Amino acid sequence: MQNIYDNVLIVGGGLIGSSIARACREFGAAKRVTIADTNADVRTALNGLNICDKVTDTANPSDADLVILAVPPGNISDIAAYVLPHMKKGATLTDVGSVKADVVEKITAILPKDINFIGGHPIAGTEQSGPEAGFAALFTDRWCILTTSDEDALAAQKLKQFWQAIGSRVTFMDAKHHDLVLATTSHLPHLIAYALVGTATDMETVTRGEVIKYSAGGFRDFTRIAASDPVMWRDVFLQNKDAVLDVLGRYIEDLTALKKAVRWGDGETLLKEFTKTRDIRTRIIDAGQDSAKPNFGRDISGDEEE
Amino acid sequence: MQNIYDNVLIVGGGLIGSSIARACREFGAAKRVTIADTNADVRTALNGLNICDKVTDTANPSDADLVILAVPPGNISDIAAYVLPHMKKGATLTDVGSVKADVVEKITAILPKDINFIGGHPIAGTEQSGPEAGFAALFTDRWCILTTSDEDALAAQKLKQFWQAIGSRVTFMDAKHHDLVLATTSHLPHLIAYALVGTATDMETVTRGEVIKYSAGGFRDFTRIAASDPVMWRDVFLQNKDAVLDVLGRYIEDLTALKKAVRWGDGETLLKEFTKTRDIRTRIIDAGQDSAKPNFGRDISGDEEE
Repeated sequence: MQNIYDNVLIVGGGLIGSSIARACREFGAAKRVTIADTNADVRTALNGLNICDKVTDTANPSDADLVILAVPPGNISDIAAYVLPHMKKGATLTDVGSVKADVVEKITAILPKDINFIGGHPIAGTEQSGPEAGFAALFTDRWCILTTSDEDALAAQKLKQFWQAIGSRVTFMDAKHHDLVLATTSHLPHLIAYALVGTATDMETVTRGEVIKYSAGGFRDFTRIAASDPVMWRDVFLQNKDAVLDVLGRYIEDLTALKKAVRWGDGETLLKEFTKTRDIRTRIIDAGQDSAKPNFGRDISGDEEE
Repeated sequence: MQNIYDNVLIVGGGLIGSSIARACREFGAAKRVTIADTNADVRTALNGLNICDKVTDTANPSDADLVILAVPPGNISDIAAYVLPHMKKGATLTDVGSVKADVVEKITAILPKDINFIGGHPIAGTEQSGPEAGFAALFTDRWCILTTSDEDALAAQKLKQFWQAIGSRVTFMDAKHHDLVLATTSHLPHLIAYALVGTATDMETVTRGEVIKYSAGGFRDFTRIAASDPVMWRDVFLQNKDAVLDVLGRYIEDLTALKKAVRWGDGETLLKEFTKTRDIRTRIIDAGQDSAKPNFGRDISGDEEE
């Protein structure tokens, strides 16, 4: 039991918030964890799950040493404005949002000088949402990115220890750079998957039943990503507009080049492009960020391998 | 032991060919299986694996009741032209290629009248290639599509029984329609994934190391698909040009609409589009075509869940 903080208040009891609570208990990272959620169904679920010390409807942060905002990106700065005046001196506020520059700018503008704010983003999650979808190992060996101008400050180091205590690897990064990196590794992939699933299910020449039956050829992978929480993802694209438009523009250029190669029957270009993408998979597996097993080792209806 | 055929000759001992051989033995679908492969390394590997009765360099089909061409799409019709004159009367030729109309047209044009040809495509595979990557359960509960003008013919029904014996569900489909369905559920997803991995690894503002470290946010899923066999996929896009350009054109329209919504901060459109894609995932899982577990139930470095 390391108890990095005495009292932790998590605002928002969904997939991420409830997983942090579970991990705090599993790894002994906090003496006492409270979850605040305005949704009565979520509170009922949380009480049934018994994963924290207290469940409440209003976020009262007066006792909290750490307040974690685990709400959709679009609500983070509003809720920060609500809790900051009631936080105790020396306490730390953080969040788990997938876009950082917008939130950091807004919260920094209203931050009392005796409260610490450090933006946070655990690169972890699943396509599922809600308190029942969470689990204690969600952050194990995943990266958590913290954004602060002073990573040597005591508050930043303590928050780093907290994330490490619940299983994460921690790195510090500039908020703007974070948003560009994540636009590439997360936001663009989601936009692409949402668009593809939309295209495939709106064809007048191929039925939805056919798309479902023959999805094992590749399509099914995209439907997992396109099943992610729509509200959270809407907020991500509203907040990270510039970086997303930048990488999306590059992507459309690259896709158009492949389209041209298909149209002209340019097998040489296709082979070259398809060959150079193979190596990155090996490096992601070597870095411990994905399974080495074929098809992610997915297990369907009791079969051993696929 | 059902022994649908006495002698089966599989030309090509890669992922699919070697998996068919394994499944024949596992489920007793053939008395005797020979694999022919022109690559000496593949033959050495096959001999070491001991998954068939004979490994040979030249495809001699004179004894075979069923010849299965499990080679890249671009080689199928050439090899068909080579084996057809030597096949015995009443025997059946089939293939496993991902594009059907091109192959069916070319082979039909040269088919002797006492040989049956039925195009085939098992919707199964992994991102790995080669004889070592195969496994007997690869086709279990996956669909295999057969293309023939007469599905009631004895030869077609026998081939259907063979695929069912090795675990597949079987359906008959017109070759042109097959190519459009698969352009949607398989070929377009692969092109999109190859393009994205190319874009992400060619950014001058985000390092390749960062792309790898933070890939758990969505990108890693695309790298699995983009690690698929480059030669096979080059051939697919050369052979299925028209259908791929059709669905790719629609996809670029849909992506451009999402891009516009991002640029204009149109949260309402984004939320609507992101919400309607959720349901298809549930239907794919209900149809037994994917795992219900979050993140495909992927298992990384010994962790329980993710």
